[in-house]
Amino acid sequence: MHAIEKILAKAAGKESVVTGEIVNCVVDLAGINDLYLQTVRSFFEMGGVKVHDPSKVIMFLDHYAPASSIVQADNQKQFREFCWDQGIDLLMDINEGVCHQVLADRGLSYPGELIVVTDSHTTTHGAFGAFGTGVGATDLAIILATGKLWFRVPEVIRINFEGKLPKGVYAKDIILHAIGELGADYAVYKAVEFTGSTLKQLSVSERMALCNMTTEMGAKTCYIQPDEITMEFLKEKVTRNYEIVTTDPGYQYAAEHTFDVSKLKPQVAAPFSVDNVADVTQYIGRKVDQAYLGSCTGGRVEDLAIAAKILAGKQINPRTRLVVVPASRGVLLEAMEKGYMKTLIEAGATFVTPGCASCLGTHQGMLASGETCISSTNRNFPGRMGHTKGEIFLGSPAAVAAAALEGKIVDPSQYLD
Amino acid sequence: MHAIEKILAKAAGKESVVTGEIVNCVVDLAGINDLYLQTVRSFFEMGGVKVHDPSKVIMFLDHYAPASSIVQADNQKQFREFCWDQGIDLLMDINEGVCHQVLADRGLSYPGELIVVTDSHTTTHGAFGAFGTGVGATDLAIILATGKLWFRVPEVIRINFEGKLPKGVYAKDIILHAIGELGADYAVYKAVEFTGSTLKQLSVSERMALCNMTTEMGAKTCYIQPDEITMEFLKEKVTRNYEIVTTDPGYQYAAEHTFDVSKLKPQVAAPFSVDNVADVTQYIGRKVDQAYLGSCTGGRVEDLAIAAKILAGKQINPRTRLVVVPASRGVLLEAMEKGYMKTLIEAGATFVTPGCASCLGTHQGMLASGETCISSTNRNFPGRMGHTKGEIFLGSPAAVAAAALEGKIVDPSQYLD
Repeated sequence: MHAIEKILAKAAGKESVVTGEIVNCVVDLAGINDLYLQTVRSFFEMGGVKVHDPSKVIMFLDHYAPASSIVQADNQKQFREFCWDQGIDLLMDINEGVCHQVLADRGLSYPGELIVVTDSHTTTHGAFGAFGTGVGATDLAIILATGKLWFRVPEVIRINFEGKLPKGVYAKDIILHAIGELGADYAVYKAVEFTGSTLKQLSVSERMALCNMTTEMGAKTCYIQPDEITMEFLKEKVTRNYEIVTTDPGYQYAAEHTFDVSKLKPQVAAPFSVDNVADVTQYIGRKVDQAYLGSCTGGRVEDLAIAAKILAGKQINPRTRLVVVPASRGVLLEAMEKGYMKTLIEAGATFVTPGCASCLGTHQGMLASGETCISSTNRNFPGRMGHTKGEIFLGSPAAVAAAALEGKIVDPSQYLD
Repeated sequence: MHAIEKILAKAAGKESVVTGEIVNCVVDLAGINDLYLQTVRSFFEMGGVKVHDPSKVIMFLDHYAPASSIVQADNQKQFREFCWDQGIDLLMDINEGVCHQVLADRGLSYPGELIVVTDSHTTTHGAFGAFGTGVGATDLAIILATGKLWFRVPEVIRINFEGKLPKGVYAKDIILHAIGELGADYAVYKAVEFTGSTLKQLSVSERMALCNMTTEMGAKTCYIQPDEITMEFLKEKVTRNYEIVTTDPGYQYAAEHTFDVSKLKPQVAAPFSVDNVADVTQYIGRKVDQAYLGSCTGGRVEDLAIAAKILAGKQINPRTRLVVVPASRGVLLEAMEKGYMKTLIEAGATFVTPGCASCLGTHQGMLASGETCISSTNRNFPGRMGHTKGEIFLGSPAAVAAAALEGKIVDPSQYLD
């Protein structure tokens, strides 16, 4: 069996499972965010009274942090009251940040876990060897009521990254490259596992970016086998016991792909789809109105560090705004401690509350008609960050910072030692 | 003549003016904020082509920093393009903060200046011995076109604060007390001058809060005679020459009031008007859902310092959110440098982009129906910070921080050494 099959089997109370089988699994942690008040409504509509196990539920007020409309404020109030009424202690209020980063910061993401959140980018937790997946309101309400959810055991695709990353090329570039090559619907309902020598050069932060983006090829979940880098990250964060599972020798992947990244150039996904990927050099000189550094994909301490390195002692282009959104309170505190926030603000950045901000076009950094944004986030559909006539290029934090400096798309590798 | 009459006379090119006279004045600095795109429209509608003197115009993108809707983003885009087209160099983009604080930070507020902004709280600049007043879009468009605006020379009311401030009592408390005693319409179209021994205990920051709030008694402008405290503040900020004017001996004020503040208790303005003022002790125990620390009234470094002192090493009440909005980029950088941001964030604060945020109910910290907020801002009308069924108590930064700690209104003086 594959490691993720073992996770599902254990959660289903079975010895083994096979691809395509439907299993009913006990969910270790179920998360709801403030876009999904319907979850609470559905829970009551289906006759729910008390949540099955409040200790296995976590609530995130991250998409509207803080509320920018009366409707958002009223919704958040209902979430808080639901938590207080139901004894859900894990209420991550507007001061906490983006769900996936908060889970990582708090050691709530760990190997072997089955974690389900009302957020498509829950694939992120593959970086810790967890089975993470996003669901809608009704599925999550079922978990609230029963503690369980059904899964179809997915096929597993193996993506193998080999080679040393060139200067200015990061996890974001290699996953954009893979999505560009394979297509935005390539892995629909399938699991993606990352392997290869390149992984050993990637921090947990970089691995989270990699797993996060598999949602953009349709993946149900993502997996990276925990190693010493994972363990080093987890050792002071996770206080509970967990078991690391491994894939059996000889497991047959549904498909395998290898990418040699050693000669890859920095990548961008051009408007209006995540698989519209090209070398950044194809777009050099394109005017940028907004450079956005943040999100569950690209708002971690390491991302801010790269931007601070590029912008230290400099001023961003006066006709470009740089919006910086640390992914969480923990990221913000560490980035302040290390001086990155000071560097970025002095360079002209606009600093936004940790949260989802305008990544999904709800508030705090919206695009006007005809504006172009380069962003470290994960989606560039029409209207994703504001006006449908705004255009979004996805790139690495380095590409974002370098574009902010110059007011246009440039090759970020020129700005690094 | 009164000092403010001398300012108007000089701006009108006259030897003297008398109360009630209409004078046409050259405006030293005209400011437009992003709520007032109509200013730009009116300028063109009245036949404007080129701004009379772009060096005397400043643009602030502070009320929507950063844009939280497509309309806001589109409006801000038009402001930027207007500045670029017209050669207005003083474009204070979304990374700068609230107009009045930015003016102070940059030394653009100075004795004898005639400053007009499309913002009602332009009375703030009385703290520097300037004649500051707020106007609407059409008046400001006239300044864009001609460099001038008409004024009726206002009566001057003198408010004299005497005595040493008790522990836990600040400028915000004494001005709320005065507004409560005199009424919200007491000074309509009149100027207010502050004098008295208490002023010598007030920093420029505290004096700005005092002057800012005279708008809430209807004042056209406010004045504090510049002294050594003013000069110390200005000396490294203001690079241009200016002249300090003084009121002639024997000037007849329209009215004079003296308040002995030496026994004053911390004050609050209860819903739903700024003159609904009482001792905080009358509302002790009232549950608080949101505590808001920010704005041109109460978001300065000194305000954050008081809150940090009260909250150091503690955690805010888990059912109360503390929204902290530094008034400007300068405030943010200094508050980070001095450790206040770290202290407040560790205590559980939600940190918001410097700007107007939800002070005026547009975004970033909106109130839900039935919620109660205690706020260091300047207005508590129904709907001011979100839902019309939200209730706002105005108080000092100390009152806000202490309420965040306890989850209810308390007497802040108990929380200070």
